[in-house]
Amino acid sequence: MSTRPELRGYTTPLSPGGRAGLVPPPPWHYVGEMLVIEYWADPDAVAAVLPGPIEPHPDAGRCAAMFVDWQSCSDEGGELLDPSRGQYMEFFIVCGGLLDGEEVTTCPYIWVDRDFALARGWIQGFPKKLGSIWITRTFGLDCPADPGLREGATFGGTLSAYDRRLAQGTVTLERPSEEGPTHNDPPIHNVRYFPRLAAGAHDRPAVHELVRTVGRDRSVADVWEGSATLELFGAPNEEHDRLAPVRVGKGFRVSFAYTVDDLITVAEL
Amino acid sequence: MSTRPELRGYTTPLSPGGRAGLVPPPPWHYVGEMLVIEYWADPDAVAAVLPGPIEPHPDAGRCAAMFVDWQSCSDEGGELLDPSRGQYMEFFIVCGGLLDGEEVTTCPYIWVDRDFALARGWIQGFPKKLGSIWITRTFGLDCPADPGLREGATFGGTLSAYDRRLAQGTVTLERPSEEGPTHNDPPIHNVRYFPRLAAGAHDRPAVHELVRTVGRDRSVADVWEGSATLELFGAPNEEHDRLAPVRVGKGFRVSFAYTVDDLITVAEL
Amino acid sequence: MSTRPELRGYTTPLSPGGRAGLVPPPPWHYVGEMLVIEYWADPDAVAAVLPGPIEPHPDAGRCAAMFVDWQSCSDEGGELLDPSRGQYMEFFIVCGGLLDGEEVTTCPYIWVDRDFALARGWIQGFPKKLGSIWITRTFGLDCPADPGLREGATFGGTLSAYDRRLAQGTVTLERPSEEGPTHNDPPIHNVRYFPRLAAGAHDRPAVHELVRTVGRDRSVADVWEGSATLELFGAPNEEHDRLAPVRVGKGFRVSFAYTVDDLITVAEL
Amino acid sequence: MSTRPELRGYTTPLSPGGRAGLVPPPPWHYVGEMLVIEYWADPDAVAAVLPGPIEPHPDAGRCAAMFVDWQSCSDEGGELLDPSRGQYMEFFIVCGGLLDGEEVTTCPYIWVDRDFALARGWIQGFPKKLGSIWITRTFGLDCPADPGLREGATFGGTLSAYDRRLAQGTVTLERPSEEGPTHNDPPIHNVRYFPRLAAGAHDRPAVHELVRTVGRDRSVADVWEGSATLELFGAPNEEHDRLAPVRVGKGFRVSFAYTVDDLITVAEL
Repeated sequence: MSTRPELRGYTTPLSPGGRAGLVPPPPWHYVGEMLVIEYWADPDAVAAVLPGPIEPHPDAGRCAAMFVDWQSCSDEGGELLDPSRGQYMEFFIVCGGLLDGEEVTTCPYIWVDRDFALARGWIQGFPKKLGSIWITRTFGLDCPADPGLREGATFGGTLSAYDRRLAQGTVTLERPSEEGPTHNDPPIHNVRYFPRLAAGAHDRPAVHELVRTVGRDRSVADVWEGSATLELFGAPNEEHDRLAPVRVGKGFRVSFAYTVDDLITVAEL
Repeated sequence: MSTRPELRGYTTPLSPGGRAGLVPPPPWHYVGEMLVIEYWADPDAVAAVLPGPIEPHPDAGRCAAMFVDWQSCSDEGGELLDPSRGQYMEFFIVCGGLLDGEEVTTCPYIWVDRDFALARGWIQGFPKKLGSIWITRTFGLDCPADPGLREGATFGGTLSAYDRRLAQGTVTLERPSEEGPTHNDPPIHNVRYFPRLAAGAHDRPAVHELVRTVGRDRSVADVWEGSATLELFGAPNEEHDRLAPVRVGKGFRVSFAYTVDDLITVAEL
Repeated sequence: MSTRPELRGYTTPLSPGGRAGLVPPPPWHYVGEMLVIEYWADPDAVAAVLPGPIEPHPDAGRCAAMFVDWQSCSDEGGELLDPSRGQYMEFFIVCGGLLDGEEVTTCPYIWVDRDFALARGWIQGFPKKLGSIWITRTFGLDCPADPGLREGATFGGTLSAYDRRLAQGTVTLERPSEEGPTHNDPPIHNVRYFPRLAAGAHDRPAVHELVRTVGRDRSVADVWEGSATLELFGAPNEEHDRLAPVRVGKGFRVSFAYTVDDLITVAEL
Repeated sequence: MSTRPELRGYTTPLSPGGRAGLVPPPPWHYVGEMLVIEYWADPDAVAAVLPGPIEPHPDAGRCAAMFVDWQSCSDEGGELLDPSRGQYMEFFIVCGGLLDGEEVTTCPYIWVDRDFALARGWIQGFPKKLGSIWITRTFGLDCPADPGLREGATFGGTLSAYDRRLAQGTVTLERPSEEGPTHNDPPIHNVRYFPRLAAGAHDRPAVHELVRTVGRDRSVADVWEGSATLELFGAPNEEHDRLAPVRVGKGFRVSFAYTVDDLITVAEL
């Protein structure tokens, strides 16, 4: 057996040629258009989703909701010319907190619409589930079907999963933004988690650690800000609606790019 | 019964409030990004799909294949803020021909990924079926995940339906285009068709007419041209592969907008 | 032109070989498992959806909601071995009425999850839109994942469209049913409808007729009855929730087969 | 912080109420209908996918392909009445091997169509990706749309992923089966795997172990056998087609139920 070639790949399925894995090896390059809705939820509800050592943020209940339209690729995966392997839609919530006195965020709930993005999220500690996400687009033409990037333009985002509408929001542009969004700015700290199935070990995960996401080569463009709305709806198998807004702040629309090929483990949980 | 309110709507389901119809009433406003691949198919295969009085084009076998990423809305349908009701993807082929000596095109095969677009197509004589279409995007950021609108950038498009890959193509940009695409330029003439189900009348459709599409308020932007590739694949329930390219010409990427609320019946068939 | 072969097919796309049409020619054979929930809605709401000459039923507000898991095929379409072309899920509501004194039903709202079923419905006058429908199954094994066909077994059905939950219901079996469901029993009369797009003719459809469905070779099996629940939920682009139950009657689970290749036009509307 | 309630759940997202996790806690109960196609692939190709200590089977190249239509639930997840959370379709291949002289199988490639099933697979070491799977059904009625469970009935299965057809097969029933399928009978040994993303550790997974699946409360019914066909098709991001059949044996159709709440780790890899 010693002469058998090794099974290769970054994720399963590992395969002789290393091409079958659901997620090609990092680096992963991303570019997308994002609606960011800054808001405040019930402070107790936010405190209840902060993992491990993260303490509540002094700006109690601070959150942001993001609808994102992504295109992504690896260095050799061929995703850009077979775009079903690289494009996906995403909705997620981040909550503010403090870790050893530093401002951080954490993502308690997130949905995407493609399997490779789901798996890539799990690896980074994003607790992804599948959902259906839609976001208003602009195509740069002045016509009734295009809101345009201009004062008064309204962009909508919606999320559903398991056949229920779970979230919807809007951002109405008022002006190019000098500062950009801030609620989602501090470094995201997520929970990387992989359970055990052995009898008696269901509550002793094989992987359970607080990790800090690391991105590089970030760029932004076309940052606009304005007013926003956000609604979160309940479902029997969801709890994100406990983070429904008690106050909504600014909304933003941002084009964004970055690359991921690293992660820092902060603590075992 | 005379006091009952009338059932209202542009399409079924007709309803008391007129809000339930699959397709809201025209006008329909469209904006999108389009890959256009100009090519030539076997002239006999093209002649075989020209409906009724349309004669073969002197440039024998002239065709174009289009991958389009659309956003659309009606005047009061609310599609822009609930974008699952207005966005859709499309792939279609047009073939050149002559009608009474005038250059025209006709669309023998077309796929979209949403029901409202399917029905809107039938009403205009586009023989739509559902499929899954993906197209490379640009987001205007200079990064590995974004091909950009620039020389050397390659955009891909793919089509599948009933779980089979049916088409794929690429366009590699070389330069801004002065002239834009020409194979798909002549007015499209389609077959509006609605069959009968009464026994004995299956071959006598209730509607069978050659129609000329009418658009208004057209605008284009960001027209680039370059080289292209195109492959069409067969399936037991498809015949578009008979129109596979024998020669491929230029490829284009175009942003495009227009409005539809009219149609001209040219001939009963 | 006279030597060109004719374009063939029962629906578009018409094609030289006649294999590309979305819907193969009749007969269409169906078999499925169905949850039937008999109920009564607000009589005025029901009267408001009765088309043309259909008068309200003396049993005011009588309706039924059906969740159906279908397999279908044509004589030569190859659907049974490529089941993505023949299987689909369906939810629909029928309302009782009187036509010239005869008990009839009519279907104001219906959703399916596949394009061929959508088109086949339009041809028969069913005002189909696409949705996502799920129904509890039984597999004939006595185990926790299978409710079984037995007293106390509960089956659920759900409908969503455009990313919103629109309906959900349950049927709890109590006993094999002697009589079977009755609310959906009278012959269905639907509105066959195909609009015009020519300017000025948007309200003068090309086809607008009251039709009576015709089925043959019907068979039923495994008819059980019991109690039921039903909820209908609103959406900006829907009106079915006006037919929400004010009282729910019996529920049924039925296996059902029939064949369709005919239709009777009752009246021009 | 010590008074904050713990985040709960079997998988992420962990949540205060423990209801938001993608996969509810075991036990997981399954029932389904399965097509099993026994076949032999190129022995070298099979040897190349045997993980770690598993040696080639003396019956060189022995494999089976399975198309399965599943309904599943947990003890308290409510899946049976909201069936979008419990039903899924699956295609997978198993290859025979020897582990310490014992006959075993391993699953190199598997696709399902729902996220909860994807994650549940990873936890058990099944290298799941998402795909679209369709399987012919029988409804127990003697009619043209139902093949029936009888001599001469043919059932088909198809798989596609990322918009390409990847597999298709058929089973034609000849007789009730005394013995049932054997190629997939030995205990399945899979690779549980969870990668690291920290720079420099991409090839040192956090979890990489050979595990033996454990099921209980198994039951089978309606086992038929007959002849079979199988085709596996390639794709740029797949390698399952290296396991294409060189010889096809018997096909089976089986109804099957079992429960999973345990797993045995056999070796660290």
